Amino acid sequence: MDIKETRELLESVKNGSLDIEKALKKLEDLPFKDLGYAKIDNHRELRVGYPEVIYCAGKTVEQVKGIVEFMITKGNNILGTRASKEIYEAVKLICPKAEYNDKARTITIKNKEVETSSTYIAIVTAGTSDIPVAEEAVVTAEIFGNKVERIYDVGVAGIHRLFDRLNVIRQAKVIVVVAGMEGALASVLGGLVDKPIIAVPTSVGYGANFGGLSALLCMLNSCASGVSVVNIDNGFGAGYLSSMINKL
Amino acid sequence: MDIKETRELLESVKNGSLDIEKALKKLEDLPFKDLGYAKIDNHRELRVGYPEVIYCAGKTVEQVKGIVEFMITKGNNILGTRASKEIYEAVKLICPKAEYNDKARTITIKNKEVETSSTYIAIVTAGTSDIPVAEEAVVTAEIFGNKVERIYDVGVAGIHRLFDRLNVIRQAKVIVVVAGMEGALASVLGGLVDKPIIAVPTSVGYGANFGGLSALLCMLNSCASGVSVVNIDNGFGAGYLSSMINKL
Amino acid sequence: MDIKETRELLESVKNGSLDIEKALKKLEDLPFKDLGYAKIDNHRELRVGYPEVIYCAGKTVEQVKGIVEFMITKGNNILGTRASKEIYEAVKLICPKAEYNDKARTITIKNKEVETSSTYIAIVTAGTSDIPVAEEAVVTAEIFGNKVERIYDVGVAGIHRLFDRLNVIRQAKVIVVVAGMEGALASVLGGLVDKPIIAVPTSVGYGANFGGLSALLCMLNSCASGVSVVNIDNGFGAGYLSSMINKL
Amino acid sequence: MDIKETRELLESVKNGSLDIEKALKKLEDLPFKDLGYAKIDNHRELRVGYPEVIYCAGKTVEQVKGIVEFMITKGNNILGTRASKEIYEAVKLICPKAEYNDKARTITIKNKEVETSSTYIAIVTAGTSDIPVAEEAVVTAEIFGNKVERIYDVGVAGIHRLFDRLNVIRQAKVIVVVAGMEGALASVLGGLVDKPIIAVPTSVGYGANFGGLSALLCMLNSCASGVSVVNIDNGFGAGYLSSMINKL
Amino acid sequence: MDIKETRELLESVKNGSLDIEKALKKLEDLPFKDLGYAKIDNHRELRVGYPEVIYCAGKTVEQVKGIVEFMITKGNNILGTRASKEIYEAVKLICPKAEYNDKARTITIKNKEVETSSTYIAIVTAGTSDIPVAEEAVVTAEIFGNKVERIYDVGVAGIHRLFDRLNVIRQAKVIVVVAGMEGALASVLGGLVDKPIIAVPTSVGYGANFGGLSALLCMLNSCASGVSVVNIDNGFGAGYLSSMINKL
Amino acid sequence: MDIKETRELLESVKNGSLDIEKALKKLEDLPFKDLGYAKIDNHRELRVGYPEVIYCAGKTVEQVKGIVEFMITKGNNILGTRASKEIYEAVKLICPKAEYNDKARTITIKNKEVETSSTYIAIVTAGTSDIPVAEEAVVTAEIFGNKVERIYDVGVAGIHRLFDRLNVIRQAKVIVVVAGMEGALASVLGGLVDKPIIAVPTSVGYGANFGGLSALLCMLNSCASGVSVVNIDNGFGAGYLSSMINKL
Amino acid sequence: MDIKETRELLESVKNGSLDIEKALKKLEDLPFKDLGYAKIDNHRELRVGYPEVIYCAGKTVEQVKGIVEFMITKGNNILGTRASKEIYEAVKLICPKAEYNDKARTITIKNKEVETSSTYIAIVTAGTSDIPVAEEAVVTAEIFGNKVERIYDVGVAGIHRLFDRLNVIRQAKVIVVVAGMEGALASVLGGLVDKPIIAVPTSVGYGANFGGLSALLCMLNSCASGVSVVNIDNGFGAGYLSSMINKL
Amino acid sequence: MDIKETRELLESVKNGSLDIEKALKKLEDLPFKDLGYAKIDNHRELRVGYPEVIYCAGKTVEQVKGIVEFMITKGNNILGTRASKEIYEAVKLICPKAEYNDKARTITIKNKEVETSSTYIAIVTAGTSDIPVAEEAVVTAEIFGNKVERIYDVGVAGIHRLFDRLNVIRQAKVIVVVAGMEGALASVLGGLVDKPIIAVPTSVGYGANFGGLSALLCMLNSCASGVSVVNIDNGFGAGYLSSMINKL
Repeated sequence: MDIKETRELLESVKNGSLDIEKALKKLEDLPFKDLGYAKIDNHRELRVGYPEVIYCAGKTVEQVKGIVEFMITKGNNILGTRASKEIYEAVKLICPKAEYNDKARTITIKNKEVETSSTYIAIVTAGTSDIPVAEEAVVTAEIFGNKVERIYDVGVAGIHRLFDRLNVIRQAKVIVVVAGMEGALASVLGGLVDKPIIAVPTSVGYGANFGGLSALLCMLNSCASGVSVVNIDNGFGAGYLSSMINKL
Repeated sequence: MDIKETRELLESVKNGSLDIEKALKKLEDLPFKDLGYAKIDNHRELRVGYPEVIYCAGKTVEQVKGIVEFMITKGNNILGTRASKEIYEAVKLICPKAEYNDKARTITIKNKEVETSSTYIAIVTAGTSDIPVAEEAVVTAEIFGNKVERIYDVGVAGIHRLFDRLNVIRQAKVIVVVAGMEGALASVLGGLVDKPIIAVPTSVGYGANFGGLSALLCMLNSCASGVSVVNIDNGFGAGYLSSMINKL
Repeated sequence: MDIKETRELLESVKNGSLDIEKALKKLEDLPFKDLGYAKIDNHRELRVGYPEVIYCAGKTVEQVKGIVEFMITKGNNILGTRASKEIYEAVKLICPKAEYNDKARTITIKNKEVETSSTYIAIVTAGTSDIPVAEEAVVTAEIFGNKVERIYDVGVAGIHRLFDRLNVIRQAKVIVVVAGMEGALASVLGGLVDKPIIAVPTSVGYGANFGGLSALLCMLNSCASGVSVVNIDNGFGAGYLSSMINKL
Repeated sequence: MDIKETRELLESVKNGSLDIEKALKKLEDLPFKDLGYAKIDNHRELRVGYPEVIYCAGKTVEQVKGIVEFMITKGNNILGTRASKEIYEAVKLICPKAEYNDKARTITIKNKEVETSSTYIAIVTAGTSDIPVAEEAVVTAEIFGNKVERIYDVGVAGIHRLFDRLNVIRQAKVIVVVAGMEGALASVLGGLVDKPIIAVPTSVGYGANFGGLSALLCMLNSCASGVSVVNIDNGFGAGYLSSMINKL
Repeated sequence: MDIKETRELLESVKNGSLDIEKALKKLEDLPFKDLGYAKIDNHRELRVGYPEVIYCAGKTVEQVKGIVEFMITKGNNILGTRASKEIYEAVKLICPKAEYNDKARTITIKNKEVETSSTYIAIVTAGTSDIPVAEEAVVTAEIFGNKVERIYDVGVAGIHRLFDRLNVIRQAKVIVVVAGMEGALASVLGGLVDKPIIAVPTSVGYGANFGGLSALLCMLNSCASGVSVVNIDNGFGAGYLSSMINKL
Repeated sequence: MDIKETRELLESVKNGSLDIEKALKKLEDLPFKDLGYAKIDNHRELRVGYPEVIYCAGKTVEQVKGIVEFMITKGNNILGTRASKEIYEAVKLICPKAEYNDKARTITIKNKEVETSSTYIAIVTAGTSDIPVAEEAVVTAEIFGNKVERIYDVGVAGIHRLFDRLNVIRQAKVIVVVAGMEGALASVLGGLVDKPIIAVPTSVGYGANFGGLSALLCMLNSCASGVSVVNIDNGFGAGYLSSMINKL
Repeated sequence: MDIKETRELLESVKNGSLDIEKALKKLEDLPFKDLGYAKIDNHRELRVGYPEVIYCAGKTVEQVKGIVEFMITKGNNILGTRASKEIYEAVKLICPKAEYNDKARTITIKNKEVETSSTYIAIVTAGTSDIPVAEEAVVTAEIFGNKVERIYDVGVAGIHRLFDRLNVIRQAKVIVVVAGMEGALASVLGGLVDKPIIAVPTSVGYGANFGGLSALLCMLNSCASGVSVVNIDNGFGAGYLSSMINKL
Repeated sequence: MDIKETRELLESVKNGSLDIEKALKKLEDLPFKDLGYAKIDNHRELRVGYPEVIYCAGKTVEQVKGIVEFMITKGNNILGTRASKEIYEAVKLICPKAEYNDKARTITIKNKEVETSSTYIAIVTAGTSDIPVAEEAVVTAEIFGNKVERIYDVGVAGIHRLFDRLNVIRQAKVIVVVAGMEGALASVLGGLVDKPIIAVPTSVGYGANFGGLSALLCMLNSCASGVSVVNIDNGFGAGYLSSMINKL
C-alpha cells in the first residue's frame, strides 16, 4: 500500500465512505496467536486453506502438545515434521486421529477433506536409502492436496531403471529428485525432461560425502538447466515448493 | 518405451502397418550435430521453439564463432552467456544483428519473434551490485518469451524499500531473488509471498562471504518455505527455470 | 604504568613518602588463587562486584565442586554455564541455595543482591528451538544486574510477528539476536533499529547448516550496519557483552 | 503500531481530531528516493543527522556519481567506502571538496560540522599491515562524530608494546581491535580491559590464514568475554558499531 | 546402436529375416526386477557371472531380507556390505549358508564356485587400524574371483617393514593401498612399483584428519604417478575396481 | 632383497663366484643424475623405455632448459607438462624438433619411435571446456605408446550424445572421464560400461564448484562401481595411469 | 650407504677382512617382529633404549593384548596411548604392574629405570579442560626420561596468571603449549620466551571451534616466531618431540 | 619477577643499596622504538645478538625504508623477508651493502660477523618447485649463525634419491622438510631419522591441494613421531625455529 492509497483510505474513513472496521482490516498487521514460546500464524490458513505445519525438531514434547492443542481448535489439517515416536504418542493422547508415518517421521491430523490436484508431482529417488526423505516430501505434498507418483530406486548406476519410468516422470507437472552420494540423478533427469526439477540432496552415503555436501554441490553445479536445490534431507521443503508449483 | 510397447511397434513394422521411417523416428536417439569440439543439440528447438544457448566461458573465440555459424543456419534465436566483449565482436562480424548486454555479459540474436507470456516473472535484487547477475536472468527470461518486472535494490537493510514494491512482487507468477552478502532477502520474501521463489546467491560481498558461500548457505537454510536455490551468480539458470515455471 | 610513573614511584619509596607495602600493591601483578587444576581470578570481583563464572563443560564434577567450594567462601554470586544436571546435583549438596535452569543449563548461586539496571536488554529469538541459547544469555545478563525483555519466536518467516514487537525491541539499550538456520533476523533487525545488535548464531537447523555455520556466515555478512557476532550457541558471551554495553 | 492503536488513529481521523496529513505521517512507510539502480534512504538522515554512506565496491563510476549527485543536494555529510582512486577522481569533478584517504580507500564530503563525542574509541592494530582496515574504521568513526585514539602495531609477538599503551586503551569507552594472522590480540585485550571489544579479523597473513579465516575463528572462539566480531577486513562496520556504542 | 543399425534391424523384422522376439531382445532396455523399494538389476549377472551386491547401510532389516530372498532364487553368489550383525542374523535365518566377516562387516553367500584368477591383487595397509577397510576389499575381490595377497601394517613410519614385503607387492597385477592419517604410503609405493595403485583413504586418525580428509587429499595430490583414489573407507569400491583391472 | 638372499650374495662375492661389479649392481640404490636443483631419475627409462617427464609449473625457464639439455643426451622421448609458451620457445632453441600442444600446454620431443598398443584408451569429456585437460591426457597416453579415442562433449545434460558414442567407449580397455561442474558423467558411464574408469574432475564451472571441488566430491561418491579419481585437472595423471592399465 | 662405501664393503668381504655376518649386519634392513596384524619395530629399542609405544585407538582388546604380550618378553618399558579402561583391564591381567592414568588415558609398564634429564620440559595449558591432552604429553615425556614442569590454567583471558609463572616457563629447555578455543596462548608465549614452543591445539571449545580447527589455525598463523604445531589433541606427539629436543 | 623479588628490590631502593636508575632498569617494560606506523623491538637484539627482522609483505616501500633507516643506526644485521625487488631497490639506495636473494625474496644486510654453529641444520625439499621456500629458510638460518646443508629434490616419488642422502640428513641436529603436493616426505623422514623435524607445507601443486592444505593436513597427521609443522610456505618460521633448536 503506497502513500497515495493510504491517503485515499484515510479520506474515505474521514468522509464516512469506509467504516473503521473495514479500514482496520486493510491496515492491520498480520495477526497471530502468542503461546509465549511460539507464535502461531493464523494468517495463511485464513487465506489459502493450507494445513498448519509444526517443525518438531528442537521442541519439547510439551511445546508440541501445546501448539497442537491450540491448532486443533481451529479445525484445520495439521502436519508435524521431524517428529519422534515419543512426540507422536503424546499428540495421539490429545488427538486420537493423529497418524504417524515412521519412514517420513511425520504426524498428520486430517480435520477436513482437501481437494486433490488433477496434475501430479513425480517424487523420484536414486536409491532405497533415500526413501525416508522422499516420504517426507510425499506426505507434505499430499496433505497440501496434491496427487503424487512415487518413482523409487532409479539412480544412475543402473540407468535403464530410470528410462523405464521416464514416461511417468515426464508427464508430471513438477519433479522432486531425492538423491545422496553424488546426486547425479538430478542432472541426468534435467537433461531428459522439460519440467521444473526440485533437487533434494540427502546425507545418504559415507566418507567424502561429508553429510550430504557432495550431493548438494553436485546438484547446485548441475550442467542441466531447470534444476534448483533445497537443503540437505529437506523433504518437507521440496514437498511444499512442488505443491506451490503444481497448483500454479 | 517399455517392452510391451516395443513389441507392438515391431509387430506393426512386421505387418506393414508402420513404415520403417516412422518406426525409426520413434526409436532413434535424440539427434544432434557434431562439430568435433561440440555437439549441438537440435532436439529442444524442434520440440519447443526454445532459443539455442551457448555457455561461452571456457570456449575460445573460434569455437563460439563456429557454433554460432552453424546455429544461425537454423533460423532460431540464440543466447550466448558469460560472453566477453571480445567474443561479441567476433560474433558480430558474422551476424550483424547480434546484440550485447554489457551488464549481463550476454549476446542475443533474434531471428524470429517470440510470443510473450501474459503472466510475469519478478526479478528482485538486494543491492545495486547484484544487478549484473539479475540482468543475466532478465535477458534469459525475455528471450525465452517471458514478461519480466525488475525490482532492484530492495535489500533487508532498508526493509521499507521492499514493502513499497511488495504488491508488484506478489502479483508475479514466480519470483527470482538475487542477493549477495548474507542473502536474507530470500527468506524475508519467502515469508511475505505465496509464490515459488528461485534464490540466486551472488558473490557480492567481501571477507567471510567466501565467494558467495554465505548467501548460498543462508538461502539453503531459509526458514521460510517455498524457496529453492541455484548456483552462485547463476542468473541464466534462474532465468531459465523461472521461464519454465511461468509457462506452466 | 609507564617509565615516568615508575621512576616517581621508586623515588617516593626511596624518600619514604610511600611505604613498601603500598608500592608493592601498585607493582604487583593481579593476584589469583591457585587450586592446582584451576587458577581463580579474584581480581574482577574486587573491582566490579561481578559474579564468579565457571564454564563447566570439560571439567569433572570434582573440579567444579572444588571451584565452587572455594568461591562460596568469598560471598560473591556464582554463575555456572554448560552445567549438566549431574554437576548441579553435586553442587547443590555443598550449596543448597544453588538453582538450576534446565533450558539454559546454568547453575546460579545468589549470595548477595545485585542492583538492576533501569535500561534493558532485548533478547530476541527467531524460533522456539533457539530458546535454550537465549535463556543462557538471559540468565547471564540478569545475574550481572540487567533488566531483560524476552521476545521469542519472531523470525522472518512470519515477519509480522517481528513488527508487532518492534516497539519493545527499539526501546532497549542493546539487543541480542539469537537465530539458527539462515540467521536472517539479525540483518532485518539491523535495518530496523538504531541500537547495537549482538548476534548469536545457533546450531539449530539441519542439512547444510553445518552446525551453525550458515547462521554464522549470514550474520558476519549482514548488509545492515551495527551488527556484531559471537560464537555459535554462545548465549553466555552475548549476555556478558550486552551487560557490558547496557551499563555504559 | 498494534491493532488497538490503529483503530484509535482511524477514529481520530473520522472524528476530525487528527488531520489526514498527520495520520498519513504516522502510517506511511519509510520514504526513499528511487534512482532506478539504487534506492537512497532519506530516513536515517532525517532522524539522526548521520552522514550518507555509499559502499562503492561493485558499483560503476557512473552509479556512484549519480548517487553522490543526488545526495549532495541534501546538504549532508557523505562517506564513500571501498572507493577506487578512479571513483574518487570522478566524484571530485562534481564535488571539489571531496577528500580521499588512500590507506582507508574512503571518500569523505563534509557539508556540515559534526559535534565530536567527549568519550573516545580506541582503534588498535596488531601490525603495520592491518593499518588500512583500521583507517577505514577511523574515518568512519570520525565522520560519525567520534573522538578516536589510534594505537597501532601492538600485537602479541611483542606484548610489552601493548602494555605500554594499555592505559590509553583502558580509558576508551569502546575498543576496536584490528588483527590478522592468528588475531590473538583480541583475546589478550579481552582479558585486560573491561570494555566492549569489537574485533575485526583481517586478511593479513599467508598460507593457512585462508584469507582471514584464521583470525576470524580465533576471535569468535576468544576465551575472554566481552569480544564480538565483524566481517573480515570490515573496518567500516567496526567504525559504525563503535560509534553507536560510544554514543550510548 | 546407431540410426543405421536400427534401420537395418527394423528392415530385418519387416522382411522376416529377424523374428520379433530376437529383435526385442536387442532393443529392450536392460531388464530388472522391481521390489517396490528396490529395483534389482538382473543384467550384470547374466552378462558376466558377477555376484549380486547389496549395500546394506540405510536399508532396514526387512528390506535386506526381501532383496536376499529374491536374489537367492537366481542361484548367484551374493555379497552384502556394511551389514550389521543384526542384519546378518536375519539373513542367516532365510539362508543358513550365509557367512559373516565381522572385521569387514560383510555377508557372503556362495551359491556356486568362482574360478580364481592366476594373477593376484596386493592389498596393503599402513596400520593395524586400517584392517577393517582392507578386509572389505579382500572379501569383495575374492568373491569376484580374484587371488589376493594381504600385506598389513607396513606404513611409512617404519619403512623397512614395507621394503621387506616389496617383492610380493611388485609381483601383483594391481595394488590396493589402504591408509589413514596422512596416507603417505600410497605415494611411497607409487614411487617404488610400476603397477596401478588404487588408494583407499581411511578415517583412521584423529584431530585434523577430519574424518579421512587428510588421507584423501594426500592421495589425490600424490607426487607419484599411477595412483588413483576411491572414497574414504570404501573397501568395496577398491575391491571391485581392482578385480576389474586384475581380470583385464 | 631379504637377509637370506643378501647372505648368499655376500658368500658368492667371498668365494669369487660373483665379481664385485656385478654384486655392486645388485646392491646399489637406484641411480640418478644430480643437477643440483633437480635429480633426474635414470631408472625408469632403463627399465621400461618410458619417456622422461618434466612437470614445468614452478620451475624457471633456465631449470627446464637444463633438465632438457641433460635428458636429450640420453636419446629418450621427453614430455613436458604445464609448460608455458615461453618455456617452449626456450626449449625449441636447444631442441628444434620439440613440439607444443597449446590446448594441453605440453612439450613433446620424440627421439625414437614408440610401439603403439592394439587396445585403446577412450578419453571422454562432458563439455567443450574440459578439452584442455583431456588433451593433456591424450598427449601423455600417446607418448607412452597408447592408441587413444577422443569422445568429447557428451555430458549428461544431453545424454543421447553419450548413448550415440557408447559403443566406442565400451570397446576401450580403460576409460578416462574428464568432467567439471557436477561431474555426473563418471557415475553415468560407470553404470553403463564394464571397464575401469579413471575420473578427472576439472575446475570448469563457476560459483559453488569451488575450483573443481564439486566434481571431485561427485566422482569420489559415485554410486557406480569401477570408478576411481585423480586430482582436479590432472590430465597427465589420468593419461599415465590409463597407459599403465592399458598395457597390462 | 653410497656406492663407494658399498664397493669397499664388498671388497672387504672378498678379501676376507670383513666376515659375512658383520657385512650382513651392515647391509640388512631394519628387522621387526611380525604378529600378522601388526609388525613390531625392534629397531629403535635396540638403538636408543626408548620404550615401546602402542597407539590403542582402533585396535581390538585382543590385538593390544597380543602386542603387549610380545613386548614384555623384551624387558622394555611400554607406553599405551588412547587406551580405554577396558583395554587397561585386559592388559593388567597379563601384566599386573601396568598402570593407568585416567586423565591421559595411558597405560604405562615400567620394566626398567629410565635416567631423568637434568633440563626440563614446561607443559603449559590455557585452561582446566585442556589438562587431559597435557597429561598425555606429561606421561609420554616422563617415560622417555624427561623432567617435566606442569603449568596449568594460565590462558590469556587472565594473563597475570601467565606472568606469575613466566620464570618457570622461561627456564625450560623446550615448552609444550596446550590450548583450545582460540589457542592464543602459543602466540603470547612465543613473544615472551626464547625457547622452542610445540603448540598442541585441543578440541576444547564449542561452536565455531570446529573440533579444534580454530586453535590449529591460530597456532599455525602465530605472529610470534619459534612456534610449531602438532595435530589436534596430540599430547603424545608433543611429549615425544619435546623429549627429542630436550635431549639434544 | 615475583612478589618476593619485587619487595626486595623496593627495600634495596629504600635503603639505598640500589639506585633508582638500576631499579628502573629492572622494572621497566621491554623498551621499543616507536616510528608511528611500527614499533621496533630493541629488546631481543640487546639480549641475544639476533639480527633485526622485517616482514615486508603488506608494508609500503616507504615504511620498509623508514624501518631500515632506523635499524641501521644500531649496527645490527638485518633480514627482510617477502621483499619485492622494488623494495630491495629502495633499500639499496640507503644501504648499498644490502643483498637480495631472488629465489628466497629476502634482503640481508650484514653489519657484523656472526659466529657459525658447528652442528648443522639439514634443509630438505621434495621437489624443485619447493626451493624458494627452502631458500627463505636457508637465508634465515644462516644470518642467525647456523651452518646449513641443502638437500633438494629428494621427494618420495623416487625414494632412492632420499636414501642416497640419508647420511647427511641423519647427522644434522635438526631437520627442515619443505614439501608441497601431498607432503609425504615429512612422514617418511620421520620414520627414518631420530632428530626433530620441522615440516613446512608449500602451496606447490594444483587442483585439490587447495593452496597447500593437502600438504599441511598430511604433515599434521604424520604417522611418524617427531614431526611438527609451521605455516604453509613459511620458510622464515622454519629457519628461525631450527636455529633456536640447533643452538640449544
